[in-house]
Amino acid sequence: MRKKAAETRKYRLDMNEKILNSGFKEFNKFFALDTNAYQAGAISVQNKELMGLVGSMVLRCNDCIFYHLDRCVTEGCSRDEILEAMHISLVIGGSIVIPHLRYAFDVLDELLEEPSAV
Amino acid sequence: MRKKAAETRKYRLDMNEKILNSGFKEFNKFFALDTNAYQAGAISVQNKELMGLVGSMVLRCNDCIFYHLDRCVTEGCSRDEILEAMHISLVIGGSIVIPHLRYAFDVLDELLEEPSAV
Amino acid sequence: MRKKAAETRKYRLDMNEKILNSGFKEFNKFFALDTNAYQAGAISVQNKELMGLVGSMVLRCNDCIFYHLDRCVTEGCSRDEILEAMHISLVIGGSIVIPHLRYAFDVLDELLEEPSAV
Amino acid sequence: MRKKAAETRKYRLDMNEKILNSGFKEFNKFFALDTNAYQAGAISVQNKELMGLVGSMVLRCNDCIFYHLDRCVTEGCSRDEILEAMHISLVIGGSIVIPHLRYAFDVLDELLEEPSAV
Amino acid sequence: MRKKAAETRKYRLDMNEKILNSGFKEFNKFFALDTNAYQAGAISVQNKELMGLVGSMVLRCNDCIFYHLDRCVTEGCSRDEILEAMHISLVIGGSIVIPHLRYAFDVLDELLEEPSAV
Amino acid sequence: MRKKAAETRKYRLDMNEKILNSGFKEFNKFFALDTNAYQAGAISVQNKELMGLVGSMVLRCNDCIFYHLDRCVTEGCSRDEILEAMHISLVIGGSIVIPHLRYAFDVLDELLEEPSAV
Repeated sequence: MRKKAAETRKYRLDMNEKILNSGFKEFNKFFALDTNAYQAGAISVQNKELMGLVGSMVLRCNDCIFYHLDRCVTEGCSRDEILEAMHISLVIGGSIVIPHLRYAFDVLDELLEEPSAV
Repeated sequence: MRKKAAETRKYRLDMNEKILNSGFKEFNKFFALDTNAYQAGAISVQNKELMGLVGSMVLRCNDCIFYHLDRCVTEGCSRDEILEAMHISLVIGGSIVIPHLRYAFDVLDELLEEPSAV
Repeated sequence: MRKKAAETRKYRLDMNEKILNSGFKEFNKFFALDTNAYQAGAISVQNKELMGLVGSMVLRCNDCIFYHLDRCVTEGCSRDEILEAMHISLVIGGSIVIPHLRYAFDVLDELLEEPSAV
Repeated sequence: MRKKAAETRKYRLDMNEKILNSGFKEFNKFFALDTNAYQAGAISVQNKELMGLVGSMVLRCNDCIFYHLDRCVTEGCSRDEILEAMHISLVIGGSIVIPHLRYAFDVLDELLEEPSAV
Repeated sequence: MRKKAAETRKYRLDMNEKILNSGFKEFNKFFALDTNAYQAGAISVQNKELMGLVGSMVLRCNDCIFYHLDRCVTEGCSRDEILEAMHISLVIGGSIVIPHLRYAFDVLDELLEEPSAV
Repeated sequence: MRKKAAETRKYRLDMNEKILNSGFKEFNKFFALDTNAYQAGAISVQNKELMGLVGSMVLRCNDCIFYHLDRCVTEGCSRDEILEAMHISLVIGGSIVIPHLRYAFDVLDELLEEPSAV
C-alpha cells in the first residue's frame, strides 16, 4: 500500500541530487548544517537520531519519519528505544500523530527485516 | 522582561492543580500518561527530557520549553547536551524557532545559576 | 498574572476597529465570513462555538481560546460541555496543548464568575 | 485517484492492531483515552464527531478527516451539519485547508453512497 | 512516482467544482476572497504568487505548492526567483520543509518543460 | 499593552548576542544562512522582506512578524504593499491568524510613526 523502503530511499537521493546540483549554493549550506546536527557530540548519534524521529513525528512528516527510522535502525537503536521515542512523540503531539505512528510501525517492520539496514 | 523561573513554576503548578481537581477524570489520565512517557526505560531520563525539549522547540511552545529545560537541568544534562538538542531543534524547525531559542537561552542561564535546580 | 477579561476584550475590539477601518476592504470581507461561520444553522450556535474552541485549542492560539470561551459562556454552554470540548482538544493536540488548557481553565473561572458574560 | 473507503479502513485497522499488539502498553492507554473522548456526555456523539472533524481539518490530517467523516456518517450527522463544520474549519484554518476540503468532499460523496456506512 | 501535472490540475478543478456547486454559498465567498488576494495591486502578481509559494512551503502543503508553482511559471517568474523564494521557505521552515523542496524541484522541472505552462 | 518597539529590538539583540557568543558555532552558521536569504538577488530586498512577513504570519510568530515588519519599513515598503502581504497571509492562514494581524497593525502604526525606522 505504501512505497517500499528501497524506492523511498531512491527518490530521496535523486531529488537531493537535483537540489544540490541546482547551482544555488545556499541549499548546499543548509544540507551541510542539517548533516552536522546529527554527528556524534555530547549526545550520541543514536540519541540524536531518536531526537530527529521525535521532531519528525510531532511535526507529522512521513518522509522525515522514514529517514530517521532508517538511520536509527542503521545506527543500532533497539526496538524498545524506538518505541519509547514514538510514545513520547504521541503524547506530545496527540492523536493527530496516530496516522504517522501507523506509518512508522509499518516502515519499522520492513526496516528490521532487511538483510542489512544500510 | 520575562517571568522569573519561580513564578513560571508556580503558575504551572497552580493551574495543573485546578485541572486535576476539576472532577473531569480524563484529564488526570492524560497527565499520568504524560508523566509516564518520561520515566527511565530503554532510553535514559536525561535523553527523554532532551527529546521533550526537541519536541517543545520544534512545536514552538515556550511553557513546554521551560518545563523540559528545567527538568534537563534537574536531571543533570550538561550544557553541551542541551545546546546540541537546541541545535537539532533549530535545524528541524527553521528560523521560526529562533525566538524560542532566545527564550531558551534566557531561561537556561537563570536555571544554571540557581542554587539548586529542583 | 495574565490580563483581565475586560482588558483582553478591549484590546481585541480596538485592534479590530483599526483593521476594519484601514481602508483595505478585503479584511472586512474576511471578518464577515468569519462571523457568518458561527451563526445558527444545522448546527446550534453553542455547538459551533464549542467547535471554534476545539479549533483554537488544537491550533494553540490563546486569544482565539479566550474569544470562543467568552462566546461559549455568553451563549450558555454548560461547564461540562466546555470541559468535554477541552478534553477532545487535549487528546487531538497532545501535551503541547496543556499550557493552553491551563490558560483556558484560568480564563473560564473568571468568565463564569462575571456578573454577566456579555 | 485516492484509495477507496474500504481500503482506507482496512489499513487503519491492520496498523492499529500492530500498534496495540506491540507489547508497549502505553499505546493502548492512549488509544483508550482517545476512544473515551468521543463517548456521549454533555455533548452528543454526533457533535463530538463533528468536533473531531474540525480538529482534523484545521490540523490538515487526511486520515483523521476520513475517520471522523466516516464516524459522522455512521452516527447520522446530516450533510448540512457536516458542510457547516467543514466551513468553520476552512475559515479557522484558511486556504491551506482547501486541499483537505477537496479530499473531504471526495470522501463524503463515497461514504454517503455506501449501502451502509458502518 | 508522483502524479503528473495534468492529472493534479484536473483533480483540483473537479473537486473545486464539486465544492462550488455544493449549494453552500459560504465556500464560494471564501474562494472568491482567495482569488482576489493574488490580483495585481501594490505588489505584482508575480511577487504575490511567490508569496503564495512561500506560505505553502512553510506550511508544508504539496497541493498548494503545486498550484503556486504552476501560477508562478504561468506568470513568468524566473527560475532564479523561484529558487530564492524556495530558499527563504527552507530557512524559515527548517529541514522539515526538505521533503516539500524535493517535491517542488520535481514539479518545477516538469512545469518548465511543458510546451505552455497555462 | 505590548512592549515598545525599542524594547523588542533590544531584547532580540541581547539574546542573539548570547546565542552567537555561546561557543557553539553551528548557531552562527544558521544565523548567517538566515541573513543571506534576504539579500538582494533575483527578488528585491523589499519583496523578500514581504515574503518573510508572509512566512511569519502564516506560522503565527509575533517576534518574527515584528522583525520583518521593522525590516519592511526600513527598506521602504509602502503601507499598501504591507497590507496586501498581510491579506495574503490572512487568507492562507485563516482566522487563527487574526490575533497576529491585530499585533501587526498595532506594531505597524508605531513603526510608521518613528522618526526613523532604523
